[in-house]
Amino acid sequence: MAARVLDGAAIATEIRAELAPRVAEFERRAGRQPGLSIVLVGDKADSQIYVSSKLKSAADEGINARLSHLAADASLDQILALVDKLNRDPTTDGILVQSPLPDRLGPAAMQQVFDLIDPSKDVDGFTPVNVGRLSQNRADLVPCTPAGIVELLKRTGIAIAGKHAVVIGRSDIVGKPVSMLLLHRNATVTICHSRTADLPAVAATGDILVAAVGRPGFVRKPFVRPGATVIDVGINRVTDEAAAKELLGAKRFESFLKRGSAVVGDVHPEVSEVAGAITPVPGGVGPLTVAMLMSNTLRAAELRVK
Amino acid sequence: MAARVLDGAAIATEIRAELAPRVAEFERRAGRQPGLSIVLVGDKADSQIYVSSKLKSAADEGINARLSHLAADASLDQILALVDKLNRDPTTDGILVQSPLPDRLGPAAMQQVFDLIDPSKDVDGFTPVNVGRLSQNRADLVPCTPAGIVELLKRTGIAIAGKHAVVIGRSDIVGKPVSMLLLHRNATVTICHSRTADLPAVAATGDILVAAVGRPGFVRKPFVRPGATVIDVGINRVTDEAAAKELLGAKRFESFLKRGSAVVGDVHPEVSEVAGAITPVPGGVGPLTVAMLMSNTLRAAELRVK
Repeated sequence: MAARVLDGAAIATEIRAELAPRVAEFERRAGRQPGLSIVLVGDKADSQIYVSSKLKSAADEGINARLSHLAADASLDQILALVDKLNRDPTTDGILVQSPLPDRLGPAAMQQVFDLIDPSKDVDGFTPVNVGRLSQNRADLVPCTPAGIVELLKRTGIAIAGKHAVVIGRSDIVGKPVSMLLLHRNATVTICHSRTADLPAVAATGDILVAAVGRPGFVRKPFVRPGATVIDVGINRVTDEAAAKELLGAKRFESFLKRGSAVVGDVHPEVSEVAGAITPVPGGVGPLTVAMLMSNTLRAAELRVK
Repeated sequence: MAARVLDGAAIATEIRAELAPRVAEFERRAGRQPGLSIVLVGDKADSQIYVSSKLKSAADEGINARLSHLAADASLDQILALVDKLNRDPTTDGILVQSPLPDRLGPAAMQQVFDLIDPSKDVDGFTPVNVGRLSQNRADLVPCTPAGIVELLKRTGIAIAGKHAVVIGRSDIVGKPVSMLLLHRNATVTICHSRTADLPAVAATGDILVAAVGRPGFVRKPFVRPGATVIDVGINRVTDEAAAKELLGAKRFESFLKRGSAVVGDVHPEVSEVAGAITPVPGGVGPLTVAMLMSNTLRAAELRVK
């Protein structure tokens, strides 16, 4: 029996519909739309796609999203100066700096940028104070992908409390924050990673399995307890034809052959034979991430005006 | 075969001996001793014992520790005003507010106090920004008990990387931060708690088991994988004679009968029949917590002068 498919796109639509009256109420009280400033450095194709999708979603929501586009050769100082300006801009409620920054800025650059963002405008939830408040179970602004995963579980009626959740991946963006959110909702939580011994066996102890590895089709059947809920956070672009053939259904493979690339998750399609429920890629966690960004922007705006 | 006993007191002595030349160097450069300000509110007997032990340890280390003792009926505003004063005091490198605060101040009081402490003086590592930096694996000041546990494992040659660590307890003071520290040292980490289903079975998956529950003798044999390392974080005062008889050896029980109380851990003595290594209570994690407080105070002082 194939796993139930958890329709993230439909839930994202639901969440965004619920924001509409709150956006209207905010505009009535504040005399302006909630404001989201997106900073994009350089011209990386994937980043441009993500940013476009966020700008479009914001416009649909009645959120005034503005793009500050810096050239690929912008200096770290220029980026920091821009963030500083946005921190002081009274019509900017949320600041999002699209990651990654260009490689030449070094591995610490992104953190330096986040360290500067006003925590009350930190709609990504990546500033140290917001990360700390998340760990203390009192965050106002929770990272979007982890928050989206929890919304998905809640709205599809999948219990968290008392369940064993296994998270593969320990990133600051997904692995660690989603572990905290699930823990605070009374799951027992195991965090695995590249150094985990016998990863499939550990993963298979999970009633809920969150895959946030960034490796196409990495999670196979032996990783999954029969009936488990599998959340696929991966957004991996494949260009290799053999990989695409293995990981895509017939229809999507056809489109791959035309375009030369496709996006796949971290979970292999064979998993749907054993899982109880699974999120698709695309159309699972991705749309929820964008919906939660809108939710965070509105929340930041409401807190500012309150 | 009885488990190897991990002598926390001896390791604490070792750590403190290593601080001595750094304290001397600090004093030479700064023209003063490192300064630790301890805030104690009220007259709770256990708190007074902890504070005395910290004051004595600091004096032994050449750290200038000063006690600010507020009456049991002090208001939250008075406590906050004191913290504010210590934040601005140039000879205070570390601020420690002894928990718990009096019950009548409500459950949020401690957090309000921590929110005010200057993160650079936060030798407990409990302010949101330091909690966030810990999650991001770049903390300068790490909570003392978790840091002590990691030192203990390191200095007794117990491997962390690639091992499965199970932490029972999800407090902000021990459970969550020690989970982060073990994760960053490449353990696979499971966090359990009161809502965990079949807790003994989950606990028994651990190569390293950290018990931070606050319940005397709670961890029994079925919780422990044969050969596992068991870290007992509990400091529980028992006054019940039957419990004391069960949990104390003959000699300590004799002393219990005289005093009417004794301190025991979260781990039942029967566990030493199955564990590979175990920390005693007292003399295990407790002395390490105090040693790491001294280490944090010196570190805060060094960063201030640098």
